[in-house]
Amino acid sequence: MTPRTQDPAATEASTVVSALLATLPGRVRTAAAVLEPYRRDRSGRVSGGPPLAVVEALSVADVQEACRIASAHGVPIVTRGAGTGLAGGGIAGPDEIVLSTRAMDRVLRVSPQNRLAVVEPGILNAELNDRLAEHGLWWAPDPASREISTVGGNIATNAGGLLCAKYGVTRESVLSLKVVLADGRLIQVGHDTVKGVTGLDLCALMIGSEGTLGVIVECTLRLRPLVSGPIATIGAFFPSVERAAAAAGDVVAAGWTPAVMELMDRRTLECVGRYTGQDLLARGDALLLVQVDGAGALTEADAVHDLVVAAGGAAELTTDAAESSRWMDLRRQAFPAIESLGTLLVEDVAVPLDRMSDMFAHVRRLEGRYGVIIPTACHAGDGNLHPTFAFQGEEVPAEVWQAAGEVFEHALALGGTLSGEHGIGLLKRRWLGDELGEDQLDLQRQIKAVFDPAGLLNPGKVFPDDDRSGEHALS
Amino acid sequence: MTPRTQDPAATEASTVVSALLATLPGRVRTAAAVLEPYRRDRSGRVSGGPPLAVVEALSVADVQEACRIASAHGVPIVTRGAGTGLAGGGIAGPDEIVLSTRAMDRVLRVSPQNRLAVVEPGILNAELNDRLAEHGLWWAPDPASREISTVGGNIATNAGGLLCAKYGVTRESVLSLKVVLADGRLIQVGHDTVKGVTGLDLCALMIGSEGTLGVIVECTLRLRPLVSGPIATIGAFFPSVERAAAAAGDVVAAGWTPAVMELMDRRTLECVGRYTGQDLLARGDALLLVQVDGAGALTEADAVHDLVVAAGGAAELTTDAAESSRWMDLRRQAFPAIESLGTLLVEDVAVPLDRMSDMFAHVRRLEGRYGVIIPTACHAGDGNLHPTFAFQGEEVPAEVWQAAGEVFEHALALGGTLSGEHGIGLLKRRWLGDELGEDQLDLQRQIKAVFDPAGLLNPGKVFPDDDRSGEHALS
Repeated sequence: MTPRTQDPAATEASTVVSALLATLPGRVRTAAAVLEPYRRDRSGRVSGGPPLAVVEALSVADVQEACRIASAHGVPIVTRGAGTGLAGGGIAGPDEIVLSTRAMDRVLRVSPQNRLAVVEPGILNAELNDRLAEHGLWWAPDPASREISTVGGNIATNAGGLLCAKYGVTRESVLSLKVVLADGRLIQVGHDTVKGVTGLDLCALMIGSEGTLGVIVECTLRLRPLVSGPIATIGAFFPSVERAAAAAGDVVAAGWTPAVMELMDRRTLECVGRYTGQDLLARGDALLLVQVDGAGALTEADAVHDLVVAAGGAAELTTDAAESSRWMDLRRQAFPAIESLGTLLVEDVAVPLDRMSDMFAHVRRLEGRYGVIIPTACHAGDGNLHPTFAFQGEEVPAEVWQAAGEVFEHALALGGTLSGEHGIGLLKRRWLGDELGEDQLDLQRQIKAVFDPAGLLNPGKVFPDDDRSGEHALS
Repeated sequence: MTPRTQDPAATEASTVVSALLATLPGRVRTAAAVLEPYRRDRSGRVSGGPPLAVVEALSVADVQEACRIASAHGVPIVTRGAGTGLAGGGIAGPDEIVLSTRAMDRVLRVSPQNRLAVVEPGILNAELNDRLAEHGLWWAPDPASREISTVGGNIATNAGGLLCAKYGVTRESVLSLKVVLADGRLIQVGHDTVKGVTGLDLCALMIGSEGTLGVIVECTLRLRPLVSGPIATIGAFFPSVERAAAAAGDVVAAGWTPAVMELMDRRTLECVGRYTGQDLLARGDALLLVQVDGAGALTEADAVHDLVVAAGGAAELTTDAAESSRWMDLRRQAFPAIESLGTLLVEDVAVPLDRMSDMFAHVRRLEGRYGVIIPTACHAGDGNLHPTFAFQGEEVPAEVWQAAGEVFEHALALGGTLSGEHGIGLLKRRWLGDELGEDQLDLQRQIKAVFDPAGLLNPGKVFPDDDRSGEHALS
């Protein structure tokens, strides 16, 4: 009875949108201008076209309803927080609906005695931490995006940051999660206690799953008391990045655990110097920044200072807040400074600490081989390097992809990983099998299918060559 | 052609044993006296009969071979470390083979600069820590069984202990694992770096899976530097366990994180007093023991002491090692002291810290209602209580099961969990669904089936009403 000229996909699309509009009045947007930003995140990728609609959920029930409707119509769901992802995991394209949890941003409970908070996923990391500070508490995950990224997004990517060697990755700061499954059912995974071993750890499985297993709708977070006592900062210029990396290794090998240990190479210093009007290269070819905190900070600072000097660094130690901040600003400005070079592809490998020097040297070799510029900053306490490829235009040039591929291969050869903290999303799917091996990749796919048998949750993300390849989502 | 009188299971059994003997000469034991101990662990449960054989694997290849043979014959595999489990997870019965990794006990690598060690699963926790101490390093998991339990077993149960509130559970101290699947394939899950977000976190999924997903054959462990600086101990008697629990809550709410915070109730003190020949009840009805360490220990100790006194405790503070040890001995002797009452069923619930008092009060009510004695000690920093039922004979009396069931129900009602650190094994299968809910339990079962489609890995453990119910393994 359907006229032959009618596109069945278009019919399905208009039906699902009608159903969403009817069931969730006031929470569904379809205007082109509203939909456009959902084609992008901060990865530089752009989807092939706008999604069908955005559901701005205000409650768990809204999320359940949206999932039920999408499932009934076989329409993919892309869960979205603040859209600050760096791997394309939150990008939506044609024939998909966006399920935004950004407006679910309430703090439901703060319990100092249990050191936990229950929050909705849409609250920004920094906003939450402002609220917690009143209680003398703190949620440790500290990605560079903390001012603009959501707690739900931090959890969905198992976000890292500057403080992980001392204070852990996001996984260590989540106790339990409420999750809506693709078909709208609600489950609660994890435990509201520090300990809990009842069955398989589905809470840890959900953390870092990038929207492929379910929609996180409520988060019970493990908190820490705010760190008291002095903070000391050591800034040290080195004649080479290899020597700076070796110094960072010496600090760890000597048994110290700084809160922050950041390393910037010559290219990065060049950019930051130009951006801030300082001649940083006159001071050295690499900068190591170390920050220590807690009760033993002053003892630790002296020891770190001595180790860094012994390793050939021109080091300064300060406990003055303003001076500390000036040092740390050099790191904070690295990304905007590099951004001024053009469009960026930010990579994110992690390698064992004693392989950092090797990884830096390899990046420099690749610069020569491919004629590209790759400023590289590094979380040196956990071996997480960000080789950053700058290029002109929106398209990633073939030689940049090739060089990036060689970065990944070398990281794996050194016993490292493709992604320390940004995730796989769209950007690294093609290399995932190289790291996991086919047997593990196959297990991961089957687990994905257990949660999402119809393949409707963020299809085309994380897993290469999925049934729904998601290639349409790439520009 | 098979004579009608021959039992097909018996034929299969003799075939699998022949195949194992032929393929793994010198590593397969079938003598009755050797098999007998594998019917038990430290849970008090006994299986219905001896297993078919024990494979004492010496290498990854041995484990792979054993799994291939067992899979080919459809024979269940019970992985076993030192057999110190408290929930029956490592018990083997008729028609099953035991795969012991106890003899795979080598330290393959210690890397101070990367703060990791690569070890085989059979090494004892305390033995490993002795080896690590030479490097100034430490593997934090600290179950009470550390002298007699293996690293592999600690990982398979996500073991807890006394130090978890400050130093984390086992999951936080494992970077990556090599795992043999039921069919003999080898995979590596996790990352050798602190950060790593490539796909789903199968390493966390494996930790605490109690032998139901695969056989752990190599462990890359995250280490910590040995804690330096002073250690201080506060011992405080209270007029009631509720007031002692409230004091522990005050310590946490004030932002302190002791390394150890242990609480013993009146029944426990009575047992320990009798066992050690001291009149502890003359000093109070409950004892709170707090130990603080690290650079700020002395400041923290003073603050904790003052809080505990303000909460009504008769408190003593010491930094003397011998005196500290005398205090901690009271806790160490709790289990042997309680054991002198009879056979034990040790429970293991965890509740939010502000519900500990409520849980203690409920246990006391149950003592009255069921006429049973339930000494209860508690890791008070993480809300993990061990209500311990003492009875005569080998069989758990019906009223003890009933009282235990009420302990679980109350813990769940308080927002807690069935098991903080011992696991589900055989003992708590029947309550697992109450905690997880049917939807999550069904997901967990399906994930189990992804790893082990034939249901050969530790069947009848963890999951209630499995295809192979494992009831044969119960005495």
